[in-house]
Amino acid sequence: MKRYFLLTLLSINVLTVFSQSTLVDKTRSFRQANEHQLLHEFMGLLSIPNVVYDTVGIQKTANYIVKMMKDRGIKTQKLDATTKGVPPAIYGEIIVPNATKTLVFYAHYDGQPVNPNQWAEGIKPFEAVFLDASLEKGGKIINVPKASESINPEWRIYGRSASDDKAGVFTILSAYQAMNKMGIKPSVNLKFFFEGEEEAGSTHLEEILAKHKDKLKADLWVICDGPVHQSGRKQVVFGVRGDVNMEVKVFASKRPLHSGHYGNWAPNPANLLVNLLTTMKDTKGKVLIKGFYDDVTPLSALEKQALANIPPPDEQMRNELGFVRAEGDGKSLAELISLPSLNINGIASANVGKMVANIIPTSATAALDLRLVLGNDAQRQVQKVIEHIKLQGYYVTTNESITDEERLKYPLIARVQAKDGYNAQRTKMDLPIAQLIIKAVQSTSKENIVLMPSSGGSLPLYLFDKHLSTPTITVPIANHDNNQHAENENIRIQNLWSGLETYVALMSIQ
Amino acid sequence: MKRYFLLTLLSINVLTVFSQSTLVDKTRSFRQANEHQLLHEFMGLLSIPNVVYDTVGIQKTANYIVKMMKDRGIKTQKLDATTKGVPPAIYGEIIVPNATKTLVFYAHYDGQPVNPNQWAEGIKPFEAVFLDASLEKGGKIINVPKASESINPEWRIYGRSASDDKAGVFTILSAYQAMNKMGIKPSVNLKFFFEGEEEAGSTHLEEILAKHKDKLKADLWVICDGPVHQSGRKQVVFGVRGDVNMEVKVFASKRPLHSGHYGNWAPNPANLLVNLLTTMKDTKGKVLIKGFYDDVTPLSALEKQALANIPPPDEQMRNELGFVRAEGDGKSLAELISLPSLNINGIASANVGKMVANIIPTSATAALDLRLVLGNDAQRQVQKVIEHIKLQGYYVTTNESITDEERLKYPLIARVQAKDGYNAQRTKMDLPIAQLIIKAVQSTSKENIVLMPSSGGSLPLYLFDKHLSTPTITVPIANHDNNQHAENENIRIQNLWSGLETYVALMSIQ
Repeated sequence: MKRYFLLTLLSINVLTVFSQSTLVDKTRSFRQANEHQLLHEFMGLLSIPNVVYDTVGIQKTANYIVKMMKDRGIKTQKLDATTKGVPPAIYGEIIVPNATKTLVFYAHYDGQPVNPNQWAEGIKPFEAVFLDASLEKGGKIINVPKASESINPEWRIYGRSASDDKAGVFTILSAYQAMNKMGIKPSVNLKFFFEGEEEAGSTHLEEILAKHKDKLKADLWVICDGPVHQSGRKQVVFGVRGDVNMEVKVFASKRPLHSGHYGNWAPNPANLLVNLLTTMKDTKGKVLIKGFYDDVTPLSALEKQALANIPPPDEQMRNELGFVRAEGDGKSLAELISLPSLNINGIASANVGKMVANIIPTSATAALDLRLVLGNDAQRQVQKVIEHIKLQGYYVTTNESITDEERLKYPLIARVQAKDGYNAQRTKMDLPIAQLIIKAVQSTSKENIVLMPSSGGSLPLYLFDKHLSTPTITVPIANHDNNQHAENENIRIQNLWSGLETYVALMSIQ
Repeated sequence: MKRYFLLTLLSINVLTVFSQSTLVDKTRSFRQANEHQLLHEFMGLLSIPNVVYDTVGIQKTANYIVKMMKDRGIKTQKLDATTKGVPPAIYGEIIVPNATKTLVFYAHYDGQPVNPNQWAEGIKPFEAVFLDASLEKGGKIINVPKASESINPEWRIYGRSASDDKAGVFTILSAYQAMNKMGIKPSVNLKFFFEGEEEAGSTHLEEILAKHKDKLKADLWVICDGPVHQSGRKQVVFGVRGDVNMEVKVFASKRPLHSGHYGNWAPNPANLLVNLLTTMKDTKGKVLIKGFYDDVTPLSALEKQALANIPPPDEQMRNELGFVRAEGDGKSLAELISLPSLNINGIASANVGKMVANIIPTSATAALDLRLVLGNDAQRQVQKVIEHIKLQGYYVTTNESITDEERLKYPLIARVQAKDGYNAQRTKMDLPIAQLIIKAVQSTSKENIVLMPSSGGSLPLYLFDKHLSTPTITVPIANHDNNQHAENENIRIQNLWSGLETYVALMSIQ
């Protein structure tokens, strides 16, 4: 009985593919006739710096999006937080006569920091360019196609937020534009919500949701962020991991020392840090911190079944990424992202390469992010790491600088700073509205779509539960090899086109 | 008998302090009358970029020094290597009628790389400035003193090579200038040799010495480089450690990955590197690489005695440097620099701080330097490290980039590149010429000078043995807290003045 129930929920009604095929075809025709204009507007959006800490760039990006919405006849408003000076969320709504359901479409318009020196030659984060393939496949920069030239859907656009998440903003607004131009009425009331602070950990999203609670009433939030499955199949994602960032900085001498005259007598902070980090995680990727895997809420039967149905991307991905030895001691990627993680985002101590000098550095820093699953609490997880560092003999402080008194009192000194972070969230896969979403996305794809109980990535989706009591489901559109968060971020053009069809279907659920 | 012999050699003849006091006094008077002109010329020298890889800056620096020498009436020549395009050594000589001995005075005019962002606010590596104290003691930038203002000898000059080693060039040439102006004839023939490639590992010094062997004949090379003892006492150093630099780079995915979607399944190179480095050295500073401490030539009885006489700087230095826990498990600094070392000069993987992103990096790099003592061979020591890395399961290559084939063949991949490096050297403390040098330096100081069997630092002094069969002795002048090789390099002005007196005495040995 239980098994039958599971299969019914997870099985895909192939008939809907044909019944909705008219909508997909129409959307495709519209897109084919308007590719150049669509991409022109998108390139304009990508040309505006949107690093989350760049208040001027963030403001300009918000204004561009407001104009995009006005051009589409969407009533638009900036939703502020209680705290002043915070990047606003951009809100808009389309009320549809006789519609009984309301969906909020979410994307974020801010982007991760950039280090232009790390990007490939000729590619600047905020001067988006077309490439004829991905860099990894030898792609070269090509001219922006003229109106008379056809656009190859395998081409890519490179630039910060090309995928994460200006592609989301663009796809949602272009789907509505397409419906408008095609004269098709949405089946539900549409609300649009574009956040401007996601990459800083959505610090003020909670305030915005609480303050504008009434306006944001809905049956479901549809989140457009992250990549489709590595196999290229479309996917619907029912949850996210939580995330919290930490920085661990180990101190030694007050001034850098000549490595000959003082090595090895003066303590080397890089040596101390590598030893400390080694106590945290073994070479197989298992975190050794006490209690790190406690608190985890087990997956439901339905979620386990979904996990088992996910095509294993492991071998394809290892080939593509160029490694044979994965972490996790043989567990699959899908299993591993159901666990909390501790990842080193970066390490720095003095210099390497051309800038190297024969010194003993004064400090060494590691940036860590902890991904959290259902049951974990961000600050409780941070506390486990801090306790572990103390257990290794360190005096731990959160203060920006170390006093002389502290230096002469404690043999080992670490500054540990953690952000607030946020917890994981999962929407139940058997909700009726979840089934409507699955059906709509499947209607746009000939292949079975992938149903993911939780993404490995993070968004503060628990806030929608907490403040609005509204479930969230993520429907991503980006290619999996988009380099989001890193240098050389990009989007494959076909993913924009497929995404457009997906989002038109989502605005037409029935 | 043996003990008596040792004491005789090491004991300081306090009477010579008085017999040579006229020379010291005269030098002091000359300096006091000429401080502004002396420092003006020195500041000019410091204003020329001299990073060892900056060929234009190196050329300009060389030309400035040639002019300084010509101004002093020294016959000057640039000594080239067999290899073309190498920074030349600048050579000059003063033949003194009836002199029976010849000393070569060595310093180097190139400097370590600089990262201007790491220097304190307002201090630029090649725009030397005066400070009224060291930065660590709250020193502030002050104006260049006018001719009418007196110069406080506790002031410091900040800039790249202020200590290492333009101070050496300046002191040697100013000592000769002082003798000239005072009308005092040197007691020995003087040769001057200023190297331009020391901070790159003196790659072509061997060629220069071999090619100009006849010209460089002498009884002793006097090396002006490095700091005086941490207690502030003058010191004479009879050897140097060898040094060889290595870079270890660990590879993982070809492209940076989102730490949520792929953590912790994709291998993290930073995690691999910290684990690898941890296997090399424990937290007490002991190197764990097999055979690392083999090959060491034991100290002679005289050298052991000298070591025992060195005032322990440990506690003073720990207070000054701001740490309580030294490496070396309780051994003294002097003992520890008699051992080979493995030091992490720097580590880098992706970014930390404001630039951090939630990614899994593609690679992680550690810069290492290995200091060598008598008996070690640079390449043999490098090989021990490489064997150790292989023992940890790594495929080791020296190639610049990793092929796809290698990536899909080997679970763990490290690129290990080593420079040529050079071996240690020690001059016997009981040579008659060594005793003359000790006597001369002691004649300029009321405190007992420190006799060091070997510096912790490195210079390719073995080459003088090998090609010229000539011993070397180092007589440093810089303050110990000069930040050489690092940001905020500086010299205390009194050290320049004391150094001047030392070098006048060295040109007058008898």
